[in-house]
Amino acid sequence: MKPSSEEEEEAVWGVGPWDECFEVAVQLALRAGQIIRKALTEEKRVSTKTSAADLVTETDHRVEDLIVSELQKRFPSHRFIAEEATASGAKCVLTHSPTWIIDPIDGTCNFVHRFPTVAVSIGFAVHQELEFGVIHHCTEERLYTGRRGQGAFCNGQRLRVSRETDLSKALVLTEIGPKRDPDTLKVFLSNMERLLHAKAHGVRVIGSSTLALCYLASGAADAYYQFGLHCWDLAAATVIIREAGGTVIDTSGGPLDLMSCRVVAAGTREMAALIAQALQTINYGRDDEK
Amino acid sequence: MKPSSEEEEEAVWGVGPWDECFEVAVQLALRAGQIIRKALTEEKRVSTKTSAADLVTETDHRVEDLIVSELQKRFPSHRFIAEEATASGAKCVLTHSPTWIIDPIDGTCNFVHRFPTVAVSIGFAVHQELEFGVIHHCTEERLYTGRRGQGAFCNGQRLRVSRETDLSKALVLTEIGPKRDPDTLKVFLSNMERLLHAKAHGVRVIGSSTLALCYLASGAADAYYQFGLHCWDLAAATVIIREAGGTVIDTSGGPLDLMSCRVVAAGTREMAALIAQALQTINYGRDDEK
Repeated sequence: MKPSSEEEEEAVWGVGPWDECFEVAVQLALRAGQIIRKALTEEKRVSTKTSAADLVTETDHRVEDLIVSELQKRFPSHRFIAEEATASGAKCVLTHSPTWIIDPIDGTCNFVHRFPTVAVSIGFAVHQELEFGVIHHCTEERLYTGRRGQGAFCNGQRLRVSRETDLSKALVLTEIGPKRDPDTLKVFLSNMERLLHAKAHGVRVIGSSTLALCYLASGAADAYYQFGLHCWDLAAATVIIREAGGTVIDTSGGPLDLMSCRVVAAGTREMAALIAQALQTINYGRDDEK
Repeated sequence: MKPSSEEEEEAVWGVGPWDECFEVAVQLALRAGQIIRKALTEEKRVSTKTSAADLVTETDHRVEDLIVSELQKRFPSHRFIAEEATASGAKCVLTHSPTWIIDPIDGTCNFVHRFPTVAVSIGFAVHQELEFGVIHHCTEERLYTGRRGQGAFCNGQRLRVSRETDLSKALVLTEIGPKRDPDTLKVFLSNMERLLHAKAHGVRVIGSSTLALCYLASGAADAYYQFGLHCWDLAAATVIIREAGGTVIDTSGGPLDLMSCRVVAAGTREMAALIAQALQTINYGRDDEK
């Protein structure tokens, strides 16, 4: 018997090929969140990475080590792409193998300032296709999940994107990105100016790409764009947005390329296309060519 | 006997001249928050105010009516400055009388989009001096309070501002403001550019002046500036920031003028002065001349 639409609203926890992986990801995201919340109440020693805006902390490393080591124990044949390992020189290549794509703390600059917009992001891809994403907004204790074909949820509640197609009614999210040289900043600000000239209701900058994408998935915003984010900011959130009914594309208007360091996401295809058309490109290279 | 520093950490609930007013403000802010949270789960009818970014909703009016009517019943001799009444033509003048300064929903554009950064703000001034402020971040159930000489708290926990004096280590908050004509936008973006050139760690735009100021009070950000906010965005938050050890001044670097529609707030005087020096003025007129 076909399930009623009400029954379809419920999370489907049937036994699928990656169920165990998903369950482990949820448990690790929750454990990681506990570590981050504890660290936020303690003094932090901070070293700088490539720029003042891109900070790395002990907690960042500690959380990544926890997640990767636990997953390696459980799934020894799987591959990993993770923020801190990549910063230390590991290659960032998505093969056909089951691959975990991990950001231990998205919103590191927020974390350092104890600005409560900080998340753990764990994505999982097989044959280069995203299977699920788990994001823990650990300062507010919200757990976002999305599984291919099974919907997206926040703390068990089904997520649905906004159906807005009119830019003049849109709340648009973006992030400044790590490059702060004068030319890059000019293009960043000019892109914001174009959207405000187009009379977007508002533009928000919250300091976490992953959580901005979760707000989009939950319908709290209509569009998101960014140049200079990484595959670990995007992987988990992309599944969640798609499962909430949204669109994730390249800033050129073409299909998403997870390694291209740029993205437009929106509730509707129309909105995504309007945003993509308005943007001038900032070149950040590719994750898999660094 | 002088209290120990540990004892000083505790909230002081002694009987002062405005205790009853403060207690009523807390109760009304909590009730208002319940109304707003309920409305966020319902469909909203929206009418536009002066611009697309400045939305007014039924809930905005309903919350303001509740707060003002309850306060009028309890304190019939008091005066009121409130956002929606002012929009309907009421004069916005701060006399020596006890005066309530109310924003029923700060972050109206967020509210309309269900972006979870929405607050109720209730300030109280006597002889033109701010006595207390109560702000309810109702989507996250955080209650911020500050009473002159008695400290600032969030859900009972003492607030302390950041002691940062170096702009290159600062997280800076701002808001776009309601004017969206090309010249105003140019100056808004140029101000953001100056701070990013000065290598501020990050700039955030969250869509609620009141809550941005609360984050500043809690030490989660180092500075805040804005042109185009109103006395009801500022009144309650100013007491909270000052009681958390922070500074609230005019964008010229001089003393705060609650009616001047502009502000710089920071954890330290040094940081506030650096921000004020960097800013180019956007003229929004005065609240008491509209």
